[in-house]
Amino acid sequence: MDITLTTGKTIESQQGESILESLKRVGVHLTSSCGSKGVCGKCKVIVKSGDVDSRSHIKLSQEEIKNGYALACMTSPVGDIVVDIPKESILTVEGKIATGKSKDLVALFHATGADIDPLSERIVMKLPPPSLDDNISDLERLKRELVANGLGCLRVPFRFMSNLAGTVRKDFWNITISTIHSDDCYEITNIFPGDQKIPQYGIAVDIGTTTVVVYLVDLTDGSLIDVASIYNSQIRFGDDVITRIVNATENNELENLHKAIIADINELVKILITNHDIEIDSIDTLVVSGNTTMIHFFLNFDPSAIREEPYIPTANTFPLSHAAELGIELNRNVPVYSFPCVASYVGGDIVAGILASGVHKEEEICLFIDIGTNGEIVLGNAEWLMAAACSAGPCFEGSGMKHGMRATDGAIENVTIDRETLEVGIKVIGDDAQPTGICGSGMIDVIAEMFLTGILDQKGRLQKDVSDRVRDGEDGLEFVVHYGDAKDIVLAEPDIENIIRAKAAIYAGFSTLLNEVGFTFDDVGKIYIAGGFGRFLDIDKAIMLGMLPDVPKERFQYLGNTSITGAYLCLLSRKLRAEAEEISKTMTYLELSVNNSFMDEYVSGLFIPHTNIDAFPNVKKLMEL
Amino acid sequence: MDITLTTGKTIESQQGESILESLKRVGVHLTSSCGSKGVCGKCKVIVKSGDVDSRSHIKLSQEEIKNGYALACMTSPVGDIVVDIPKESILTVEGKIATGKSKDLVALFHATGADIDPLSERIVMKLPPPSLDDNISDLERLKRELVANGLGCLRVPFRFMSNLAGTVRKDFWNITISTIHSDDCYEITNIFPGDQKIPQYGIAVDIGTTTVVVYLVDLTDGSLIDVASIYNSQIRFGDDVITRIVNATENNELENLHKAIIADINELVKILITNHDIEIDSIDTLVVSGNTTMIHFFLNFDPSAIREEPYIPTANTFPLSHAAELGIELNRNVPVYSFPCVASYVGGDIVAGILASGVHKEEEICLFIDIGTNGEIVLGNAEWLMAAACSAGPCFEGSGMKHGMRATDGAIENVTIDRETLEVGIKVIGDDAQPTGICGSGMIDVIAEMFLTGILDQKGRLQKDVSDRVRDGEDGLEFVVHYGDAKDIVLAEPDIENIIRAKAAIYAGFSTLLNEVGFTFDDVGKIYIAGGFGRFLDIDKAIMLGMLPDVPKERFQYLGNTSITGAYLCLLSRKLRAEAEEISKTMTYLELSVNNSFMDEYVSGLFIPHTNIDAFPNVKKLMEL
Repeated sequence: MDITLTTGKTIESQQGESILESLKRVGVHLTSSCGSKGVCGKCKVIVKSGDVDSRSHIKLSQEEIKNGYALACMTSPVGDIVVDIPKESILTVEGKIATGKSKDLVALFHATGADIDPLSERIVMKLPPPSLDDNISDLERLKRELVANGLGCLRVPFRFMSNLAGTVRKDFWNITISTIHSDDCYEITNIFPGDQKIPQYGIAVDIGTTTVVVYLVDLTDGSLIDVASIYNSQIRFGDDVITRIVNATENNELENLHKAIIADINELVKILITNHDIEIDSIDTLVVSGNTTMIHFFLNFDPSAIREEPYIPTANTFPLSHAAELGIELNRNVPVYSFPCVASYVGGDIVAGILASGVHKEEEICLFIDIGTNGEIVLGNAEWLMAAACSAGPCFEGSGMKHGMRATDGAIENVTIDRETLEVGIKVIGDDAQPTGICGSGMIDVIAEMFLTGILDQKGRLQKDVSDRVRDGEDGLEFVVHYGDAKDIVLAEPDIENIIRAKAAIYAGFSTLLNEVGFTFDDVGKIYIAGGFGRFLDIDKAIMLGMLPDVPKERFQYLGNTSITGAYLCLLSRKLRAEAEEISKTMTYLELSVNNSFMDEYVSGLFIPHTNIDAFPNVKKLMEL
Repeated sequence: MDITLTTGKTIESQQGESILESLKRVGVHLTSSCGSKGVCGKCKVIVKSGDVDSRSHIKLSQEEIKNGYALACMTSPVGDIVVDIPKESILTVEGKIATGKSKDLVALFHATGADIDPLSERIVMKLPPPSLDDNISDLERLKRELVANGLGCLRVPFRFMSNLAGTVRKDFWNITISTIHSDDCYEITNIFPGDQKIPQYGIAVDIGTTTVVVYLVDLTDGSLIDVASIYNSQIRFGDDVITRIVNATENNELENLHKAIIADINELVKILITNHDIEIDSIDTLVVSGNTTMIHFFLNFDPSAIREEPYIPTANTFPLSHAAELGIELNRNVPVYSFPCVASYVGGDIVAGILASGVHKEEEICLFIDIGTNGEIVLGNAEWLMAAACSAGPCFEGSGMKHGMRATDGAIENVTIDRETLEVGIKVIGDDAQPTGICGSGMIDVIAEMFLTGILDQKGRLQKDVSDRVRDGEDGLEFVVHYGDAKDIVLAEPDIENIIRAKAAIYAGFSTLLNEVGFTFDDVGKIYIAGGFGRFLDIDKAIMLGMLPDVPKERFQYLGNTSITGAYLCLLSRKLRAEAEEISKTMTYLELSVNNSFMDEYVSGLFIPHTNIDAFPNVKKLMEL
């Protein structure tokens, strides 16, 4: 039985194989966050012709089923079939945008003032061969030369000594060693025969609760070779960190949560190194950023105390580990550096964000917010840093939303609604891409626009009589953002409620933090916004929604995913790693979950833009118009 | 089918199981150094009645086969059988002699002047429980308390952090941690909930080329709980280190050699802790002594360069490892300390021997010799130490000898031959034990006595006309040391040649080392003899043989297995560990294999007692009588 793709490629399906498996076998990777259990609904394909056997239709609407949609993991061909893969189902390898992104990143790195001095250093040397008069052991010979090279304190972990004798002799005592600095001492992390100074690559990873992003970086010049990202397949254990901790703790799923994230990283790394034909031994370090819980899962640390008062993680700074002990499929000795965290709900991703934004070097007071699955906020400057976390939920990353998706090809990222005609204009990511869903910035836009045009009221209720696009859907009222051939793209009332709760939590976080230190928004010089919004976030619309404060627009700067940027910076510079560690030590943490003022602020924020409309003078003015 | 032992016990044999396997299943362990391949001939049993199916008779004499001897690993019952297990086949657990030995060892320990301060320290503490105001991570909380306890530099290896959160909370923040000092820093090696200060045990291991010995030690008072020993099952890869290295290198058997020694240690440890009902988590450290090659095999390090000029080991000092990475079946985090070595052929066993003998603290010049499978010699005092190795072969440990055995129950350890009647008197190890073989001291005795009575000539040839006990055997002429019911115990001419080559190498080593530093035997105040001779070595006979120098008898001291004694001492004291490391650094190594003077001395020693009879004035006098 053949599976022919609408792109032209034909694959022979093997007996009993799902469409997902057949595609994977030939290197076509679909998004799948439930581990092929037919639960997440991410691996949708459209069967254009031929018969199939589908074991589940969960997460597919009646309309989609009618139009031939099927879950690739639950569907096998019965005869020859023709299949179309919607863009949102393809596991995206963002090779196309790497060149421009790479230049920006290299510029950002140089702007920090640091020199390229990778976390892992490769030293090439020629050992003097032994003789009867100079018959010290191989290890002592190596140490003697390294001390002569200025590496005073040197630790040699046991694990890779097995083949030392063969390695040093293989290329006539010419060797390359990789070292990393750890606990005030150099540690050898690998030894290769011959001169293996270049190429030298590193991997930066951002483990988001919803999305995992991997950078492949050339450590010699800092250039970004490629990027790959995927939904975090831990989603099958829960959308948010708390549900996953409960699963880890009460259902003994820690090991499986650990394995899920390791598998995601392995899959992305494999795609990158295969696509760029990179030797596995030329990869020297892996730097991982993420929130505290994600790093716990990554390292297989028991996260149970994170979710119970007084919210204590196993660790905030993590011992170096190495690839083999985590199951990372690189050279077994590759050191794995995990970003230091601050507290249970302010993690390494935020430390990375501060490093990337430079708040820790600013004189004026800055506000930093990272809107991912949670919203974490930092207030401070070069002198002090205070952080808090507010549970925003994964809606801005597209998770838990009917037609939500990440900011990738096919996502509606910008929406306008004409004040007069109520005509909807959309902008889609990707050249000539057909819209397949809405990403975070698109959602903010559509809600702000609906509010301004009266389609949505202050409480977030859709007004059926205002626009024809408001209709009854499967989950109550919904607004059609885009009429499609195969399916319409809508925002339903539960989606809108989700977003209003999220934006209320974020704004309440800002206010509470400022109150705590006795400042107001007027004292804040810069507001840095990080998160998975892709390349675009309309600040005006976010202010309109009441998510961001109503201050002059030039104070805002949108930074994108600063967690991965921070991991990238650390990979390239030991000085920046030290800065990250300093940031994690400097930052104090304010627990909002026991803060009454936060709860009051949150409830006040469940309106558009806010119960206290006077805090939003420009929005008030617009509303009066 | 039932296997009934002559001791009364009956075991049901399972289909296809060898007698060895049936016995093992019920906890009766036989010596087996070839891995049940029917090659080593160590697992002999005597089938007293019933039919058996024997697949091999290798290593059994015609006489033995006639008397019902069979290899337990190659033999299965056909019907019900009755089996007698000869003492030499039983894997000895020397529980009986531990009490006396324990007192001697504890006395020796205290004589060093060191306090009991085990390699691994257990610290019991109560952590202040976290609160919203004191919400640092579990790891930071632990480190804060340890710093308050005076442990400044502290490393926390990644591997056991997975369960830290659960461990600290299990007994209301009461915990016990194990630490070891390493690389100028403390390293946490384990964390237990509650107060687990005692019991605390340690394991000392001596990996001899031929014999493996394990001590189970109570770390709180230094008492020796029990001892177990076994033939090193690497013997199936060769009797000596060179053959084993060739097998490791050219036949890719390194992994199997590694696994063989680990399996031996695991078997002995399991027997000891089972017999004494010891919780596995109360064992805190493992100290391993052995020659350089044995430690390489133990650690799975490539030993190939050891056997080729200029004879370079991978390492002489070894990073700490832990049980899990070696496959040792203890708590996975138990630190494994391997004794530092000096050179490829002067290993940790010799460093341990010097530590145990105290040569490194003596003012007068001492000579130390360890006669195991090799003969290693050290000359020196508190100021300097010089070492050399001479290949003696495993004959004194009973290996490669027709009726050789270790100094254990049933071994003939002392032999006299009446000058007039030529009647033979023997002394056997063990209460009322029947003789089953000859150990090293017995061999020295019988050769010296045969020489004195004219049964053996100066070249080591048996004289058929002198005694009826000299007869034609399977391997040429042989001397019957004991007429047995089931089998006679003999020393054959190839055995005698073996011993003469060994003693010549040892004496040549002494002479060469003394020449090198310009001293003679008269300058040597003490001669310490170590090795597997059990409790008894007749110095006079060893001088007669020409193995030891003809100097006043009071200068000699027999110390037994100093390799295991050194490991025992190190287990109990960090000060002594530091002394061992200092010894390994101080000692210089003289390579005899390229030393012409050594070769000349060796050839001169292939006579009894020596070509230069004037060097043995007392022997000369006796011979003239």
